[in-house]
Amino acid sequence: MNNHALVPVGVLGASGYVGQELLRLLAGHPGASVAFATADSAAGQVIAGQRLIRVDDAPLASAELVLSCLPHGVSGRYVRDVRAAGRRAVDLSADSRLSPDAVYGLTEFARPRVAQAQLVANPGCYPTAALLALLPLAQQGLIDDTREIVIDAASGVTGAGRNPKRELLFGEVAEDFRAYAAGNTHRHLPELRAALEREGKFTGDVVFTPHLLPVKRGILETIHVPLTRPLDRAAAEALYDVAYRGEPCVQVLHDALPALRDVVYRNRVALGVIPVADVRRPRLTVIAAIDNLVKGAAGQAVQNMNLMLGLPETAGLVC
Amino acid sequence: MNNHALVPVGVLGASGYVGQELLRLLAGHPGASVAFATADSAAGQVIAGQRLIRVDDAPLASAELVLSCLPHGVSGRYVRDVRAAGRRAVDLSADSRLSPDAVYGLTEFARPRVAQAQLVANPGCYPTAALLALLPLAQQGLIDDTREIVIDAASGVTGAGRNPKRELLFGEVAEDFRAYAAGNTHRHLPELRAALEREGKFTGDVVFTPHLLPVKRGILETIHVPLTRPLDRAAAEALYDVAYRGEPCVQVLHDALPALRDVVYRNRVALGVIPVADVRRPRLTVIAAIDNLVKGAAGQAVQNMNLMLGLPETAGLVC
Amino acid sequence: MNNHALVPVGVLGASGYVGQELLRLLAGHPGASVAFATADSAAGQVIAGQRLIRVDDAPLASAELVLSCLPHGVSGRYVRDVRAAGRRAVDLSADSRLSPDAVYGLTEFARPRVAQAQLVANPGCYPTAALLALLPLAQQGLIDDTREIVIDAASGVTGAGRNPKRELLFGEVAEDFRAYAAGNTHRHLPELRAALEREGKFTGDVVFTPHLLPVKRGILETIHVPLTRPLDRAAAEALYDVAYRGEPCVQVLHDALPALRDVVYRNRVALGVIPVADVRRPRLTVIAAIDNLVKGAAGQAVQNMNLMLGLPETAGLVC
Amino acid sequence: MNNHALVPVGVLGASGYVGQELLRLLAGHPGASVAFATADSAAGQVIAGQRLIRVDDAPLASAELVLSCLPHGVSGRYVRDVRAAGRRAVDLSADSRLSPDAVYGLTEFARPRVAQAQLVANPGCYPTAALLALLPLAQQGLIDDTREIVIDAASGVTGAGRNPKRELLFGEVAEDFRAYAAGNTHRHLPELRAALEREGKFTGDVVFTPHLLPVKRGILETIHVPLTRPLDRAAAEALYDVAYRGEPCVQVLHDALPALRDVVYRNRVALGVIPVADVRRPRLTVIAAIDNLVKGAAGQAVQNMNLMLGLPETAGLVC
Repeated sequence: MNNHALVPVGVLGASGYVGQELLRLLAGHPGASVAFATADSAAGQVIAGQRLIRVDDAPLASAELVLSCLPHGVSGRYVRDVRAAGRRAVDLSADSRLSPDAVYGLTEFARPRVAQAQLVANPGCYPTAALLALLPLAQQGLIDDTREIVIDAASGVTGAGRNPKRELLFGEVAEDFRAYAAGNTHRHLPELRAALEREGKFTGDVVFTPHLLPVKRGILETIHVPLTRPLDRAAAEALYDVAYRGEPCVQVLHDALPALRDVVYRNRVALGVIPVADVRRPRLTVIAAIDNLVKGAAGQAVQNMNLMLGLPETAGLVC
Repeated sequence: MNNHALVPVGVLGASGYVGQELLRLLAGHPGASVAFATADSAAGQVIAGQRLIRVDDAPLASAELVLSCLPHGVSGRYVRDVRAAGRRAVDLSADSRLSPDAVYGLTEFARPRVAQAQLVANPGCYPTAALLALLPLAQQGLIDDTREIVIDAASGVTGAGRNPKRELLFGEVAEDFRAYAAGNTHRHLPELRAALEREGKFTGDVVFTPHLLPVKRGILETIHVPLTRPLDRAAAEALYDVAYRGEPCVQVLHDALPALRDVVYRNRVALGVIPVADVRRPRLTVIAAIDNLVKGAAGQAVQNMNLMLGLPETAGLVC
Repeated sequence: MNNHALVPVGVLGASGYVGQELLRLLAGHPGASVAFATADSAAGQVIAGQRLIRVDDAPLASAELVLSCLPHGVSGRYVRDVRAAGRRAVDLSADSRLSPDAVYGLTEFARPRVAQAQLVANPGCYPTAALLALLPLAQQGLIDDTREIVIDAASGVTGAGRNPKRELLFGEVAEDFRAYAAGNTHRHLPELRAALEREGKFTGDVVFTPHLLPVKRGILETIHVPLTRPLDRAAAEALYDVAYRGEPCVQVLHDALPALRDVVYRNRVALGVIPVADVRRPRLTVIAAIDNLVKGAAGQAVQNMNLMLGLPETAGLVC
Repeated sequence: MNNHALVPVGVLGASGYVGQELLRLLAGHPGASVAFATADSAAGQVIAGQRLIRVDDAPLASAELVLSCLPHGVSGRYVRDVRAAGRRAVDLSADSRLSPDAVYGLTEFARPRVAQAQLVANPGCYPTAALLALLPLAQQGLIDDTREIVIDAASGVTGAGRNPKRELLFGEVAEDFRAYAAGNTHRHLPELRAALEREGKFTGDVVFTPHLLPVKRGILETIHVPLTRPLDRAAAEALYDVAYRGEPCVQVLHDALPALRDVVYRNRVALGVIPVADVRRPRLTVIAAIDNLVKGAAGQAVQNMNLMLGLPETAGLVC
């Protein structure tokens, strides 16, 4: 593939952890090149070979597609500018995720819609792992909606952003572990619920509790699923095998449970299941692991971008 | 207090993480002195000022009380030797925990029995945190036993012992996080269930999933409790305040949730609660944090020892 | 010792890492009590049982002695206020360290002067370790001053303070290691040189390079000393044994080198030595380890305070 | 490039950290494919898509080139078997590094010899960083050989291998830092000295002290160089710029010093320099950083393999 074939893409908000990861992935992408990258506070700096400019100076129309890693509450406005300039967009912020104008880009469940989309709302990191774990069960009607799904999720600190805050200092986070936004107060929950209903027809209760892990990257979710009927381990694994047959970015483990190190630096979700012994009603524990910066953000954005541009879906990605 | 007043105590199995912590605590204890400490593989070495001897060389009768940190499956035998020598014992292994001859030493719920006991079975680290979190609710009949209690627990690696295993190498654990013994297969679960029934009359289902944290010490448990009736946050906190009024080793947080750094190096459980929003039936999330080596093992053992010897309950402990 | 015997002391600047450590140590001190503790940004908060007040509200005269953990450049002014109020002071900042009005409080080398001092300048963390390692050699004229002493020092991040800075975020520091202030540009170097000359008559060259370690606390210094004559390991160890005989806070290792875990949470320097093989001229490598927050700051301050107040030197300290 | 063009290569010893990294790199290599990979204890397991076989079952002749990650003391024997089978080899162990039959594969200084070699001895991780830092100065006669070069090196734990040892457990290494093999006793030193003399004509003294860092991967070396004449920072940087002009795997920093995060997961050495102020004789501090598993082992082996096979030098590598 020669240089003339590279599709020019733009990146808004490139100095945070997600933006940096996106530049890193695009730097090694065989089919796209970075037309511009913005970062107001870091304008003038060079990251991954790219000199950053101010967002208001971005030549939006010089790109065929623009990916926005701007903060929630800011991103939406610039995504509208991109659309107004006649360009397609992937919004990695939460701003477009509940919007009817955007395709919710959980790639494995939205492939044809993403390919045609003018605007893709890239899913949140926590919902990405939870949905990939739950939708195969939900679509088979296997989740008992009279009982609650309980999700305990733990994320590396890059998920909390790169702005200096005392509670994110190494001296505070190292050797620590804590829950936050407990009691169903995390802003990812409505997004998760909406997608569970839309894609899985599931309208039951969900309890979602995120935790802050003393690691740089990675999300592990331990998902407690009440079942409508018993599933042994082989049957549960087979169900996931079927649901994800041929999927390049989903790894279904057999007789094993995933760990962060199975997924970091990869655009992959790893899934493992085990039935729960010694309880009266059938339950399945599903463990899902992703890299919050890759499959949970920049990697999935590239996966969606590839589909939108007609490139091979995993171009530039290690799955 | 002069030196003649120090009560001689013995330590079996002093080279592991729990044994080392116990020696450290006893070295600073104002009312007890170490008569002997054993460690077969490390015999001859000096830890915390104490020269280690072989367990079969231990002069059991030279101590008034013996604490055993020997491994599960080995400890029970030596504890019987201690009893046969006419000495009282605290067994930190699992061997005595389901035995009718031992008092289960969850101090806050067994104070008078511990004081009189010839043999105290020191609780497991995971059950200690879970029971201190759940018993106040169970004793008030607030837990809906038609639904499952879900406990996701995460422990620092010292909980897995000090024997060299590949999966515990720094190169494997750092930047990683994983579940283990999922599906209700952990050996602490029967102990937890038995105590919930005995002390709390709770016989409902429990789902317990431990995880391995990349930290040295500390356990955090996120405990999802189905309630028989709604409790707002203030009411839930008040309930714990009453249950633990005057307890020196229990910290009930208000409008906050505990983290590992609130408890490491302390003989303390920290508890925080929050009701779950946006679910149809009442639920409470309870977070409990302890240091697995202190309140989860050596510290609680000293607390129990103090009671048995008539010493101030927190002598030698930082709570 | 009953409560009336507790000496009231004040703490200025109690919300940083050093201030917190100082409050922790004082909370367990058998002979002193905290009369007040200040922290402007955290005024009103409670740390270690102490409600923080604003520094300008501090009732300086209510304390017999005031310890200042205020930042460099600020501390000196408040220390003057303390002195003007007729109270003795320990200044943990760098402000008093080169002042003729203060006693430089490297306890082991300044004990009688500290006991009588009105103002003690508590040494910097890096100089504390370096001086305790070098002075025994310097005082014996064993350091070849025609060659350079090379010191590579590595510190945990609490040494860099608790103010939020991007470069101190967990996401930046974890899995990283770097030098900083290389090329002899660190502000601790003049302090180190002055004390080497004053206490050790050493006026040769020193190369000092600090590094940032991905740990919370601890300093390890690898000190390369050119010798005037060869010393084998036993002779070098004997020299340190003699120099530090009876010192409660100095541990001289034999046939071993110290690590951070030998010293963290302790008011101790651990020293180990090894001659360098396969070089033409005699050299000794000295490794010194301290906890930057304890022997490198708050612990040594308490050690000095104890001397000033006529209390046992290690009261309230674990050495 | 179609599949028929892939050169078959073999890997001996694929279950350790270096072997795993090598399989990871080869899995994404555009010009080579893995013909076989061995690992006795892990035979039958699949790593990076490759089923491991026993080393004695390896069909050596099925590969055009064999890379050995076997342990020191074992590797040499199998490398001889490879050569006897008429195949070229890269020995990542120390076994061939001092052998006259092997080309010492510090790529940047041995490119033409490597391209022609039948057997390449891949350099040790510590010498790789030290030599790339020192040879430009040595080749210009800038190092004062009447004074000692002092090297303090710090490595992540993967450098110590993957065999279970207590001192490498997470519970021991986390929050710790220590020197080891001090006093010039590390086995990499003769290799370093031989190469300094061979490539740089430097025969002066070297003091080398390695340290164990609580990180997974990365080596940082702080190298204290006595100079024959003063060099300011710009002049020193210019010297390195010239020495490494066009080198794809060497990054010379300007007005900055490298950190581990500049190099991990990359086949790159990053170099930064700063003159030392306030000393009587001229000195330069050079900081070198590499990923011990990449440029310090598997990556440099692939770089050498590429040269031997006539492939683009950085094929399959991120520099």
